[in-house]
Amino acid sequence: MPLPPEALAEIARLRATPRPTLRAVAEGMEAHLYRPIPVLDHGFVRVIDYMGDDGAIVQAARVSYGAGTRAARDDAGLVRYLMRHAHSTPFEMCEVKLHVKLPVFVARQWIRHRTANVNEYSARYSVLDREFYLPAPEHLAAQSAANAQGRGETLAPEEAARVLGWLKEDAARAYDHYQAMLANDGQQGLARELARINLPMNVYTQWYWKTDLHNLLHFLRLRADAHAQYEIRVYAEAIAGVVRDWVPATWAAFADYRLGGVTLSAQGVEVLRRRLAGETVTEETSGLSRGEWREFVAFWG
Amino acid sequence: MPLPPEALAEIARLRATPRPTLRAVAEGMEAHLYRPIPVLDHGFVRVIDYMGDDGAIVQAARVSYGAGTRAARDDAGLVRYLMRHAHSTPFEMCEVKLHVKLPVFVARQWIRHRTANVNEYSARYSVLDREFYLPAPEHLAAQSAANAQGRGETLAPEEAARVLGWLKEDAARAYDHYQAMLANDGQQGLARELARINLPMNVYTQWYWKTDLHNLLHFLRLRADAHAQYEIRVYAEAIAGVVRDWVPATWAAFADYRLGGVTLSAQGVEVLRRRLAGETVTEETSGLSRGEWREFVAFWG
Amino acid sequence: MPLPPEALAEIARLRATPRPTLRAVAEGMEAHLYRPIPVLDHGFVRVIDYMGDDGAIVQAARVSYGAGTRAARDDAGLVRYLMRHAHSTPFEMCEVKLHVKLPVFVARQWIRHRTANVNEYSARYSVLDREFYLPAPEHLAAQSAANAQGRGETLAPEEAARVLGWLKEDAARAYDHYQAMLANDGQQGLARELARINLPMNVYTQWYWKTDLHNLLHFLRLRADAHAQYEIRVYAEAIAGVVRDWVPATWAAFADYRLGGVTLSAQGVEVLRRRLAGETVTEETSGLSRGEWREFVAFWG
Amino acid sequence: MPLPPEALAEIARLRATPRPTLRAVAEGMEAHLYRPIPVLDHGFVRVIDYMGDDGAIVQAARVSYGAGTRAARDDAGLVRYLMRHAHSTPFEMCEVKLHVKLPVFVARQWIRHRTANVNEYSARYSVLDREFYLPAPEHLAAQSAANAQGRGETLAPEEAARVLGWLKEDAARAYDHYQAMLANDGQQGLARELARINLPMNVYTQWYWKTDLHNLLHFLRLRADAHAQYEIRVYAEAIAGVVRDWVPATWAAFADYRLGGVTLSAQGVEVLRRRLAGETVTEETSGLSRGEWREFVAFWG
Repeated sequence: MPLPPEALAEIARLRATPRPTLRAVAEGMEAHLYRPIPVLDHGFVRVIDYMGDDGAIVQAARVSYGAGTRAARDDAGLVRYLMRHAHSTPFEMCEVKLHVKLPVFVARQWIRHRTANVNEYSARYSVLDREFYLPAPEHLAAQSAANAQGRGETLAPEEAARVLGWLKEDAARAYDHYQAMLANDGQQGLARELARINLPMNVYTQWYWKTDLHNLLHFLRLRADAHAQYEIRVYAEAIAGVVRDWVPATWAAFADYRLGGVTLSAQGVEVLRRRLAGETVTEETSGLSRGEWREFVAFWG
Repeated sequence: MPLPPEALAEIARLRATPRPTLRAVAEGMEAHLYRPIPVLDHGFVRVIDYMGDDGAIVQAARVSYGAGTRAARDDAGLVRYLMRHAHSTPFEMCEVKLHVKLPVFVARQWIRHRTANVNEYSARYSVLDREFYLPAPEHLAAQSAANAQGRGETLAPEEAARVLGWLKEDAARAYDHYQAMLANDGQQGLARELARINLPMNVYTQWYWKTDLHNLLHFLRLRADAHAQYEIRVYAEAIAGVVRDWVPATWAAFADYRLGGVTLSAQGVEVLRRRLAGETVTEETSGLSRGEWREFVAFWG
Repeated sequence: MPLPPEALAEIARLRATPRPTLRAVAEGMEAHLYRPIPVLDHGFVRVIDYMGDDGAIVQAARVSYGAGTRAARDDAGLVRYLMRHAHSTPFEMCEVKLHVKLPVFVARQWIRHRTANVNEYSARYSVLDREFYLPAPEHLAAQSAANAQGRGETLAPEEAARVLGWLKEDAARAYDHYQAMLANDGQQGLARELARINLPMNVYTQWYWKTDLHNLLHFLRLRADAHAQYEIRVYAEAIAGVVRDWVPATWAAFADYRLGGVTLSAQGVEVLRRRLAGETVTEETSGLSRGEWREFVAFWG
Repeated sequence: MPLPPEALAEIARLRATPRPTLRAVAEGMEAHLYRPIPVLDHGFVRVIDYMGDDGAIVQAARVSYGAGTRAARDDAGLVRYLMRHAHSTPFEMCEVKLHVKLPVFVARQWIRHRTANVNEYSARYSVLDREFYLPAPEHLAAQSAANAQGRGETLAPEEAARVLGWLKEDAARAYDHYQAMLANDGQQGLARELARINLPMNVYTQWYWKTDLHNLLHFLRLRADAHAQYEIRVYAEAIAGVVRDWVPATWAAFADYRLGGVTLSAQGVEVLRRRLAGETVTEETSGLSRGEWREFVAFWG
């Protein structure tokens, strides 16, 4: 993911000129601003701007005149309380804007999160770069037998090589034809909005994406999850690192109550209660379906 | 767009069994239900369900016990009033659910309309069909010289044939490799979520899309517009025909106040006022920028 | 909550004229259509329209041509799977429209659910009725000592009578003055948009409210909860009964996975694991805060 | 609107401690931060935080690495282009957070703008202050004869005095009873969530309100309009002043294309064309309804 020199120069320029502000400042985010965090083979996530910090959540929850409480310890306690009781609106009071470079098939999953603002690079207006996502061999995996929408074992080297060869060749040929269709020396040159339809879904695109912290945490919960496709999960993990640096108290509460927590059904509660009372519960006597029992035992033993 | 026989049978079955309901019924929509309206070479739009009619808009605007007024003429008058004064909430009281088959690059434009509910066919879970959008020769146009994101003249036959050849060959080869990567006879078989990244953006996908009438009209205003890409415009036009049959009074008001109307800037108002007073206004004396003047003269002469 | 005679006549008229439709029909909802379900002393909930049923959820999840599977049993299984794994978009494919009469202070809590369509009776345009919510004596409760935003014991009869007296008198006087300010015999008559500001927040208003099933279930989860204020909870409970009749499979899954379920934090999981292993865990050794421990023990013993 | 001394001290403290940031800084907003702008008799608007400036809009529209273009003049030109062609997403890239104190009846209109984040002072949790909106005599106006939801002439002094007397007395008595119901010396004390229902809708509440610039401009267009109720219009006007200082290029474009512009129906366009061609058009030959003709002539003469 080497950025073009003029992009690097622009980032250096922006980072060289701090200006005074009276707003809430999160030091952890200032360190991230504008710098690309590499993701996949050509992608990145860059923080472009942010609003608020842990104190801003507390301030909004209290509809107060000041900025959080004086004691950071009290702020963290209130943040935990808000997270525990699913008070979502105070977390909406923080906002972040990211510049993301990502393959189109990842963008198609990402955009399903509707409560966000998006400006995407327009392939009607501009020409796309010759950059395609090619999985590393260790990420080329077979269809999972257990999970209809997941991956299983890594492909054997020979099969992986064959797959990778096709992905490379097809992308290269599609891009060659894309350029040839656009060219207007000796021909009219096809409209960009049509030529691009020949490109495969692993071509890279870019967008500015802005959302609030509540919706970002929801995004992370779904996309940093083990069931998410690997290629979007790595973006979620990169963003998770940013959130940890931005709002440490919120991140800690999120890790305890959401990522590390678990939701039990009424039947699951009943099984645990019977176990705590010393009973041995089997799949047959559990009241759970086969799939639920499998998930239950995988977690609780 | 020949549907598979079992789909046609299912549609015939659903259309053969009317059931009584006490809800508002729009006869124009009953005629559409389940039937595919062909769009592009393999796509379609089908109405799956709807809620409300012109009367429901009036009923909600009045927060009334009954269903619209007794006189359809009064309803139409109120609908026009609501449309003229941009009262959007009564139009949100009607809802429609569509099943759409469309190329991925069209889906990517469509999904930017966020106030809608979507369930898309999952290429992580299922295998995509061998169906690609190939433009008819008359739609293969050169890049517009005037408009950075539009089309100009139709391509000369030879260039069109060359373009079409590449689109066909690249799609066919990409799909062959997609199938070969997925196959698990004699190999492990690549996970579906990875194999699909080799497919070009003119492959067809499908989704259920549900939205309210206010947001649907906004969608139509942007996507049935001459500046929209042809391939999404034809979907918008198919849906426009459905809306006309569904809520005729609303459609008439929409056609008068939105589609057939025009928005003037403060400067544009001033120019018209001077003209009405008999003055000859030139680009130089208009106060409009070059681009604005061009658009203004194109419309007003 | 006696409806005005013309409203009753309109409801009778609407219920007397079934019409054929090809759409999905939910018998449980047809029985509800238009009929007011009384809530509080003057309020109600009425179903005005609905879209979809349990089968529609399955149909959308599968992006299928038909309406659900043939076997209702398979539909229920898929609905449970979707609910368990928090697949929210298929539930968005059902929609309901309600006519609600409710006190203004309840409306102010309700409107915080943003993903809904609303048309409210306009007190700028029309005159409000002389109807105020007056709590039944058994609902006049003291401030809770344990919960800063809840109720404790029922008030002693004398105090309850004093409170009720004030509520009645103040509402009556405010409404008398409202009418007197509006009157234009012998005076100009204050604008309605100003006169209404004299009315207390227990005055009744009305609205049409439309939302999808996913967001409705989220509303019910928060508002049918024991921590919700009693006066909105009774509306949620009335709507819960409607949902049970509308989409029985969805309701059953919701009851099992959401209403009857519980969410554990990472620390809570750890405490349960230690208990299951035979350890006696105390507040001190639990790693939970005082508030968390109290909630934990209240649930798990 | 004298703020409590501790609030003033907090504001002074926050304004005394600038910190360096690498983010976009809008000097016009730095001057506003935390300071209350008085609105009505006890209300205010305070800027708590903001994200972005005119350059951020351009930067997002271009999905660029840098911050806007080098020449402010080019930025302004692009901003005008985006506004003219209703490209809304780049304007969503700026965000603002306000602390607002406002009467409940204004809050009820305001909250209808759903695309915003809100945290309101909780009257279940806390006790409301004894502050009520009392219109100045010049704002006590009669019901408009022409407009069913508007005001006409100012009330005659005697009638105004009578109205004001009632508003004052009823608010004072309601608040006295509110306090008496809450008191727990010698009685249990009614729950706060119930006691508050006795308060009239001109009591003041407070909230944190956060939205993006696109939605804020939409809010201003509707609420700074002559048809909006005076009491919300003054809030919109206060915020309009803030926007002008924050994003001057955007404000100028908004003033030209939205506030100062006008929308014509298809029939209105036709009438203007006939007039420009020298024809004298009358109401009868215009094709406009009576209401439309009245509005048309009021604007165009």
